[in-house]
Amino acid sequence: MNTVQNNRSIEICFTPVLFKYKLTTENHIVVIVDILRATTAICTAFHNGAEEIIPVSKIEDTKTFRQQGYMIAGERDGIVIEGADFGNSPFNFTKENVNGKKLAITTTNGTQTIEVAKESGCVVLGAFSNISVLQNWLEEQDKNVVILCSGWKNKFNLEDSAFAGALAERLISSGKYSSVCDSVVAAIDIWKLTENDVLLYMEKASHRHRLKKLGLDDVLEFCFTEDTTPVIPYLQGNALVNILR
Amino acid sequence: MNTVQNNRSIEICFTPVLFKYKLTTENHIVVIVDILRATTAICTAFHNGAEEIIPVSKIEDTKTFRQQGYMIAGERDGIVIEGADFGNSPFNFTKENVNGKKLAITTTNGTQTIEVAKESGCVVLGAFSNISVLQNWLEEQDKNVVILCSGWKNKFNLEDSAFAGALAERLISSGKYSSVCDSVVAAIDIWKLTENDVLLYMEKASHRHRLKKLGLDDVLEFCFTEDTTPVIPYLQGNALVNILR
Repeated sequence: MNTVQNNRSIEICFTPVLFKYKLTTENHIVVIVDILRATTAICTAFHNGAEEIIPVSKIEDTKTFRQQGYMIAGERDGIVIEGADFGNSPFNFTKENVNGKKLAITTTNGTQTIEVAKESGCVVLGAFSNISVLQNWLEEQDKNVVILCSGWKNKFNLEDSAFAGALAERLISSGKYSSVCDSVVAAIDIWKLTENDVLLYMEKASHRHRLKKLGLDDVLEFCFTEDTTPVIPYLQGNALVNILR
Repeated sequence: MNTVQNNRSIEICFTPVLFKYKLTTENHIVVIVDILRATTAICTAFHNGAEEIIPVSKIEDTKTFRQQGYMIAGERDGIVIEGADFGNSPFNFTKENVNGKKLAITTTNGTQTIEVAKESGCVVLGAFSNISVLQNWLEEQDKNVVILCSGWKNKFNLEDSAFAGALAERLISSGKYSSVCDSVVAAIDIWKLTENDVLLYMEKASHRHRLKKLGLDDVLEFCFTEDTTPVIPYLQGNALVNILR
């Protein structure tokens, strides 16, 4: 047998501040996750033809991009920021709105998470909406994988952790990855609890209720549906591009 | 009905670095957890008559206490530190060794966690070995509860999280507490997965294997057994004392 099995590691960081304590220090790809709603929205934008998307952590930095003709998507705590074309509901990123366009986006958690990871090498974005193409692509790379959840203001959240578990379970099942990380065990177990009815399980998630109060929970079903946007947002310099384009 | 229900909050921080992002900011009790093995060991020491225990985060600071006649318990990564009387296996803290004695203790994770929380007010230690007395005492205090897991070098771990879930589930079942914290949902769900056979579940825990490699896993069954040490270690100034004494 020439097949090398279990030769790459998977690790999960439940919030951005935990990234600096990860065990994996080299030859890794970081998968950033913010299911409700940043990474799902960005996948949708690329699926509908966006050219490039600049993740921006500070609201004021969007102004420079506006002057350069970028569309601006931005929210804080679910509320659209002043001067933005729209917030970060995936439903805003329609073909009519974004096809062929350049965008800058700033969100409460997701864009800050990218900031934390961007010095560390290869960064891609994951969501249920691109899980299968992402899994296949990761398996081709032969690198260690660190799944970095955005959480909510550095608190653990259920939706990102469940996705991390779903992706980790797929990768481990491929036989190419293994893990010595308790976060991976917990995330896979949480994912297994959700997978018969993920929307029912997410009734327990705090951010699901935060979005409901704001009337923004129309995206729920879409955000937990697999494989609606076969793209991989990939950080190239300061811009996200679709590596499968 | 005069009964006030669900009036206090429960929150869980999975690692010390997450403590500063907790939502609860006042009128709270912090329950520090390090099941394998610091908080279990300290409960055992008090149960066997220790007078007071000083948690010390730096190894060099144990020297001062040694000069003052304290016994020293200390380990790093499971290995007993130089100059210590013993490490932090609960089995070291026998009546013969600790009855009537003053101790200083330093451990890889647990004593550092106490350091993080000690400015924030009331700090107690929790373990499966004191879970029922701790639950009853907390319910009498009418304060918010933050359960702070030690984890492993700021990484999430299964054993502390499972305990946090066990304690949170008991408190919520009392009707006096509620939670808007996703960590509480996840920890309770993990606890429910373990509770039919917690030792079997802990076969998946990384620290369980770390201890096994070091030949230190004789403590496993004891560390997951409920109510063997009816004490509550309580931080008074710089010293832990048994509040139930």
